[in-house]
Amino acid sequence: MPFAVADSLVARGIAPVVFALRGACDPARVERFRHHWISVGQLGRATRLFRSEGCRDLVFIGSLMRPALSEIRLDWGTIRVIGELMSAFRGGDDHLLSGIGRILERDGFRMVGIRDVAPDILMPQGAIARATPDAAATADIGRGREVLGALGPFDIGQAVVVIDGHVVAVEDIEGTDGLLARVARLRETGRIRAKPGRGVLVKAPKSGQDLRFDLPTVGPKTIEGVASAGLAGIAVIAGSTIAADAQGMVAAADKAGLFIQGLPA
Amino acid sequence: MPFAVADSLVARGIAPVVFALRGACDPARVERFRHHWISVGQLGRATRLFRSEGCRDLVFIGSLMRPALSEIRLDWGTIRVIGELMSAFRGGDDHLLSGIGRILERDGFRMVGIRDVAPDILMPQGAIARATPDAAATADIGRGREVLGALGPFDIGQAVVVIDGHVVAVEDIEGTDGLLARVARLRETGRIRAKPGRGVLVKAPKSGQDLRFDLPTVGPKTIEGVASAGLAGIAVIAGSTIAADAQGMVAAADKAGLFIQGLPA
Repeated sequence: MPFAVADSLVARGIAPVVFALRGACDPARVERFRHHWISVGQLGRATRLFRSEGCRDLVFIGSLMRPALSEIRLDWGTIRVIGELMSAFRGGDDHLLSGIGRILERDGFRMVGIRDVAPDILMPQGAIARATPDAAATADIGRGREVLGALGPFDIGQAVVVIDGHVVAVEDIEGTDGLLARVARLRETGRIRAKPGRGVLVKAPKSGQDLRFDLPTVGPKTIEGVASAGLAGIAVIAGSTIAADAQGMVAAADKAGLFIQGLPA
Repeated sequence: MPFAVADSLVARGIAPVVFALRGACDPARVERFRHHWISVGQLGRATRLFRSEGCRDLVFIGSLMRPALSEIRLDWGTIRVIGELMSAFRGGDDHLLSGIGRILERDGFRMVGIRDVAPDILMPQGAIARATPDAAATADIGRGREVLGALGPFDIGQAVVVIDGHVVAVEDIEGTDGLLARVARLRETGRIRAKPGRGVLVKAPKSGQDLRFDLPTVGPKTIEGVASAGLAGIAVIAGSTIAADAQGMVAAADKAGLFIQGLPA
């Protein structure tokens, strides 16, 4: 996802600098851009690097997984604000990023959202692949949105699989790929008996999610997972979902006969 | 679970007859009781057997998994009420059992609940093992009840795992054992980084669940799963949860240092 944003900037003549979080970023892909590596806990070093590169606008991309203590490299810039960070940390991943964002804004940077800097990579409304949801899939989509709405306050479940009106599985910290693998397994073991080609993956931002930093993302891998899980397609929120490699995604969906539906927010 | 109910009846001098659903019952354990085997779809045969055994009070035990078409053996007694059954079927497993119950009551039988015939196998309120939930576990229990409440309308999630305030995973059709295995896997792969001995399995009836037929059940196997998942204990609703082999369960919990808490409804 960060590379989709960076590519979008480059395509419009803006030169991005990637500040890659050690352990969370693919080194081979980072190489394509001007970049620096930073570790969790190096807020002081990060701030100095932002200044030396002349960056004023910062885009956080991705959510910050709760790091292991052994991976954290505290520097003085971090220790200065540690109390603030710890209280943000206890609020969950999203709050942690928002907390860091607040600190950086106080230091004179401007936090900008993915939607502001790379609107071209967002899912549009409507069907983007050839297939379209039938009546059963449309009903499943509605059911899925209801469940995600009910789970909103709990910082879990950015995605859900609904088949023929039945809520089959809710995403946990394994993420969407893990959810789809689980559904595929449930089909293999016969726990799901609906015919292949039925059911929908519905994915939406969590209600507390800071959409400046962290947007639900779908890509060709999501489509592969949906195909393996034997579903009919996916539905995401238009304007609040990144379509990473939209072209590859549509090609994969058309090949498998799946729909990709952008829903009104 | 059916055998725990049958044992409870025998202990009080009541002779039960087990009508075992083919494919869903352990033959070796059925052998211990007077019994008949029936297949899904044999409502006519079942009704005749109930009458020939002189049974008036019927207890449904367990939920009816959506059967494969190939497993169904329709008899005339079923075909007579097939329209009614199909509309109940579409409402989900619980509605299907309620629908069958209504038909049998019309035929002169009395549907009684597990709670009425075997109250001695229900979880009491409070802690039944030596350990008790600390403040963090108590907070996790509260969080878990909130999530289960929110999921109530959706016929999913009879159980949830909460660790340090984070909702880690929601039960799907794999059931509670599957949920605990998933949490154990997430711990092994490092996706859950909380220390072992933290977090709670919270289990409660679904809001639409017909408590006459289908009560959440916990037993020694649940405790083993909770231990493997590295949690601190389990919390269930007192009076609405079957403790199958309570003694074995408490022994397993004491050995692993886990708590078993019965919550007020």
